[in-house]
Amino acid sequence: MQEQTVGDLSEGAILRRILDRLPTSRAIVGPGDDAAVLDAVDGRVVATTDTLVHGPDFRLAWSSPFDLGWKAAAVNLSDVAAMGARPTALLVALAMPDDLPVSFVDGLAAGLAAACAELSPGCAVEGGDLTVSDTLTIAVTALGSLDGREPVRRSGAALGDTVAVVGDLGVAALGLSVLFRRFVDAAGSPVAIDPSGWAGLTAAEALGLQRQLAPRPPIASGAIAAIAGATAMMDVSDGLVLDARRMADASGVTIDIVRALLGADPDAALGGGEDHALLATFPPGAALPEGFRAIGEVRARVAAAVTVDGVPYEKPGGWDPYRDWDAGRG
Amino acid sequence: MQEQTVGDLSEGAILRRILDRLPTSRAIVGPGDDAAVLDAVDGRVVATTDTLVHGPDFRLAWSSPFDLGWKAAAVNLSDVAAMGARPTALLVALAMPDDLPVSFVDGLAAGLAAACAELSPGCAVEGGDLTVSDTLTIAVTALGSLDGREPVRRSGAALGDTVAVVGDLGVAALGLSVLFRRFVDAAGSPVAIDPSGWAGLTAAEALGLQRQLAPRPPIASGAIAAIAGATAMMDVSDGLVLDARRMADASGVTIDIVRALLGADPDAALGGGEDHALLATFPPGAALPEGFRAIGEVRARVAAAVTVDGVPYEKPGGWDPYRDWDAGRG
Repeated sequence: MQEQTVGDLSEGAILRRILDRLPTSRAIVGPGDDAAVLDAVDGRVVATTDTLVHGPDFRLAWSSPFDLGWKAAAVNLSDVAAMGARPTALLVALAMPDDLPVSFVDGLAAGLAAACAELSPGCAVEGGDLTVSDTLTIAVTALGSLDGREPVRRSGAALGDTVAVVGDLGVAALGLSVLFRRFVDAAGSPVAIDPSGWAGLTAAEALGLQRQLAPRPPIASGAIAAIAGATAMMDVSDGLVLDARRMADASGVTIDIVRALLGADPDAALGGGEDHALLATFPPGAALPEGFRAIGEVRARVAAAVTVDGVPYEKPGGWDPYRDWDAGRG
Repeated sequence: MQEQTVGDLSEGAILRRILDRLPTSRAIVGPGDDAAVLDAVDGRVVATTDTLVHGPDFRLAWSSPFDLGWKAAAVNLSDVAAMGARPTALLVALAMPDDLPVSFVDGLAAGLAAACAELSPGCAVEGGDLTVSDTLTIAVTALGSLDGREPVRRSGAALGDTVAVVGDLGVAALGLSVLFRRFVDAAGSPVAIDPSGWAGLTAAEALGLQRQLAPRPPIASGAIAAIAGATAMMDVSDGLVLDARRMADASGVTIDIVRALLGADPDAALGGGEDHALLATFPPGAALPEGFRAIGEVRARVAAAVTVDGVPYEKPGGWDPYRDWDAGRG
């Protein structure tokens, strides 16, 4: 028997399959009306949106539906955390080819639910949209609460502050290189990762692959950093150097990174994207909150926004989807 | 000289072009950080998301970039209005093929800005996301404020209530039929609408075409209806009968529509989607707020969720993108 596809079911039937797999709504008005109504207890709401597109952002040959749901949630939760906020709700807009198996939808919903439960308990999917597209696209909006605190912006890094991170650096990028080295055919097209595909990977490569497909950003650390007095914070999505440049430019300072504090592979840590670590600055001498490790210091602005051991770091480092998409098209 | 494409520019350069064309942020934290921070003055926020996908939802041959930006905003503003709320902010996630001309982005941003200014003054684009895709996709999230009122849900229609609408019924569907009848080539593919294409259209057809490409939902009427005591309300996006069925099912009632109150073409009014009128119910005898017109009455539930002049209405009426996409693929 041929497996049912998304095109075989009505929009309502697909929606029911998804909602059945999600945790119960905690909203004032949850899924099923024209819009959700959510608590915003301190009179403000944090809001961000990020999209995963088949091709530049993932390949179905490599990502399971569960991983995709997880990743779509994780990368958005991370942007809320980076403001010092606690994620409260997701809205998920799914645009799917109608020949996609229905089991895809089940797996995606399970991944969304698991990411909320494990990375940000209390956050639930409270709304969404279903439509048809030739290109599988998952656009997620995440909302969050500052619980009365001030948002931690990119622009607050001050002279003498300690630069710190929590979460992985360079791990997801290693996983990406494994994908393009080990899991493509002779023509460079992605091939599925079967269990035997993990044989022969080093422990670091296997971890990288897993994190690339299903990142584990330190969501709770965002609010913890805010409470601990972080002066600036952001999500490291495009690589440490590129994102540190953005923070340095926004703050009018130079960020100096100490290579010896970057672990076994400093260049991977400086350049690799998609780990969704949190980069934050704390006042000089402040004790760093749990999980954060110092990697440098905020200095007076010089020509270079980022220096490594005092020397301008000129390798490109990090990515811009418009520049790298052709190279990555498989 | 060849026109620049989206693929020629960096993500940052595209973002600047968009932001330059949008009204100034009114947010606590606007575009440029990991997430926006918005006022939610009464401690709640209304949130909804809706996506426009090239193919099922629009064709570049027919829709100008301005129209697309306008429509992407309008359909989302309408879902906020349908809760009785006032739209406060949009987040816009754009996934674009890299061969799209840069002028597309300029037009889209202008359309987003104009729709906010004309349909919902005070609402601005406060965040978004740019990515690459083979299929042009515009996913918008709209946020809104209830300003202390209770949300108006679909489930509140009560026995004896007056059923009323504000906005067009069947107008956008007439426009869609004009597009598929007049603006396709022999193979059924869309052809561009040049100025001469409007020649020979009746006034109703021309209005329908314009509304199909750039709908004008009555956004302010949502809050007005809530203040006037609407018991239930929703956005008529998929056709009056289909959406009235949803309201009737949610409320456990039957909605009876009076054919004579539906204007010159009752069948078009009953079946046509995409006008984004507001359908609302008001207590028996209540004066209808400005703009609303009575079209029927809430009755005790019978087998049929919707009746027309007391008789079950069994034509399909309205659409489900998954059912109609193949028929509409051009």
